[in-house]
Amino acid sequence: MADFSIAVDLGGTNLRIAAVSIDGQLLEKITLGTNLASGPDHVVSEMCDAILRLSGKYRGGGSFLGVGAGIPGVIDLEAGTVRKSANLPGWSGYPVREEIERRLGAQFFLDNDGNMAALGEQWLGAARDVPNMAMLTLGTGIGGAIVLSGKIFHGMNGMAGEFGHVPIEPEGVPCGCGSHGCAERYASATAVVRMAREAIARGGAPGLAEAASAGAEFGAKSVYNLAVQGDEDARRIFRRFGEALGMLLAGMVNGLNLEMYVIGGGVSSAWDAFAPSMFEELRERALVYAVTEPEAVAGGDEAAAQLLARSGRKTIVTRALLGSDAGLYGAARMAVVGL
Amino acid sequence: MADFSIAVDLGGTNLRIAAVSIDGQLLEKITLGTNLASGPDHVVSEMCDAILRLSGKYRGGGSFLGVGAGIPGVIDLEAGTVRKSANLPGWSGYPVREEIERRLGAQFFLDNDGNMAALGEQWLGAARDVPNMAMLTLGTGIGGAIVLSGKIFHGMNGMAGEFGHVPIEPEGVPCGCGSHGCAERYASATAVVRMAREAIARGGAPGLAEAASAGAEFGAKSVYNLAVQGDEDARRIFRRFGEALGMLLAGMVNGLNLEMYVIGGGVSSAWDAFAPSMFEELRERALVYAVTEPEAVAGGDEAAAQLLARSGRKTIVTRALLGSDAGLYGAARMAVVGL
Repeated sequence: MADFSIAVDLGGTNLRIAAVSIDGQLLEKITLGTNLASGPDHVVSEMCDAILRLSGKYRGGGSFLGVGAGIPGVIDLEAGTVRKSANLPGWSGYPVREEIERRLGAQFFLDNDGNMAALGEQWLGAARDVPNMAMLTLGTGIGGAIVLSGKIFHGMNGMAGEFGHVPIEPEGVPCGCGSHGCAERYASATAVVRMAREAIARGGAPGLAEAASAGAEFGAKSVYNLAVQGDEDARRIFRRFGEALGMLLAGMVNGLNLEMYVIGGGVSSAWDAFAPSMFEELRERALVYAVTEPEAVAGGDEAAAQLLARSGRKTIVTRALLGSDAGLYGAARMAVVGL
Repeated sequence: MADFSIAVDLGGTNLRIAAVSIDGQLLEKITLGTNLASGPDHVVSEMCDAILRLSGKYRGGGSFLGVGAGIPGVIDLEAGTVRKSANLPGWSGYPVREEIERRLGAQFFLDNDGNMAALGEQWLGAARDVPNMAMLTLGTGIGGAIVLSGKIFHGMNGMAGEFGHVPIEPEGVPCGCGSHGCAERYASATAVVRMAREAIARGGAPGLAEAASAGAEFGAKSVYNLAVQGDEDARRIFRRFGEALGMLLAGMVNGLNLEMYVIGGGVSSAWDAFAPSMFEELRERALVYAVTEPEAVAGGDEAAAQLLARSGRKTIVTRALLGSDAGLYGAARMAVVGL
């Protein structure tokens, strides 16, 4: 058996704790409900119980290397606290790292969950063997992360990778961040629903209007289902989504010239609806292509090694492979390589 | 006396060679005309003669550490050749590094001149003591560079930092790169002249029209002079320039979260005309400000240490300090720290 680390994925709904071997095997995963109402102390207690259970169980087979955790929100990396989290009300300023290290007597690394997903994809997923990459996580908004030489690039105060708020429309839709025209206003689940409701309000989008009034929850998935069935209004929304994402990615490619850009998150399952217009924008706007004469290599579920072999020195834009486990793998990796 | 390196700045007009001590003292600078008509072999001969002259002269006082050169154009870093250069016709594919190393018997580092200017500003200029920074060089277009931990971040194939081609206007002005709406179409000398000519063509811009028809060369400087004199049409052009630059910088701040962004190049001398609207965009669009509660610190000619002290952990956007010598200092630095 092998040395292992413990990964924690603390979400607003689920708290997941896993033992992962140093070569990337998931040894065991525990899924608990996140008991937010009982407060941070209680959640941390449950987390530590599970960590101790797993570390005790697998210690026989190899060394226990440490604990890494991904948490949704803005993390103060120096203090080891949550600065701000919409999903964890009441956690702002709570000394997460200090409490956990005190209870466990072991080193504990804490980072943003989007960063952890990127590190997971870089370690074992779409960007395996690709040391320099960025990831966009398409969900309610757009999360982002940069990995350089196999480690998260945090920037000055942990805010690097906030690609969702890169402006792509000078006079665009207002954003909760205080700006307007941010990329995530056009390429996220929220954006899909907004564009659908606007199309319904303008009239002449009968399929969308019917779906919205059907009673069931009307979300990005409903619009995607219509797009798949050929509804032109729904398809137009995902084309706009792809254009916005392509414009964002083109700026990233021109500015960063990384080997690979991985697209993950729940909304990435609508890939076939938005990818064509995304690649169209990229081909037109990404300067590096003009010099190295590549096209973006549209990866499906291929392994990175195959993609790289096919692409030569071309820029790769592809889908994430690890789904919701990416963050767990990333947190396990962080426990080994550090922040 | 101190150990020293030799810096080369090869431009389409001038060829400059300097001996710079390891602590950043310019020992001697030789400026020659670039004799492009005689071909690369001849220019390289003249360059090597000057390098040997300087290295021989200063060798008595300390060790000769190597040679670094900045060249305008796209450099193949692995091959040590110029891929493409508008300013050095006939140099594409010429084995610059091989030829020079053969003649000198010394290691020779070659990089893009924009990267060298950034490394110079990071070593001795506006970003002294700031290990992570980016620079925008405003000239005919926008050059760019990223410095991480005191070294140029090149990306996959040397193209990192092409911020001039980050798209900021979805339906914007066509660009020579094949895209449209690139940042440099709105914030460069070329952009200023284009906007001025468009204002003249629309009519109702009498100051600009008069300046353009005065016979003397009509350029960005002419528009700036009018703006300084209070001409509202000229001022509007620089406000637009600042908005575009602010939008570009906001995306960089949100994506990279670097300590400092330095604005250099000839057109940066119009700072007072474009900086107000640039900072306005930044304040609205740069997300990191909302978390760290800073404003951009508008630096004039202050040293970085003072700026940092004033800013705390705020994002700094400021002017370059070293002018046209930045690239020489950067090349001297590269000879010591490597590519």
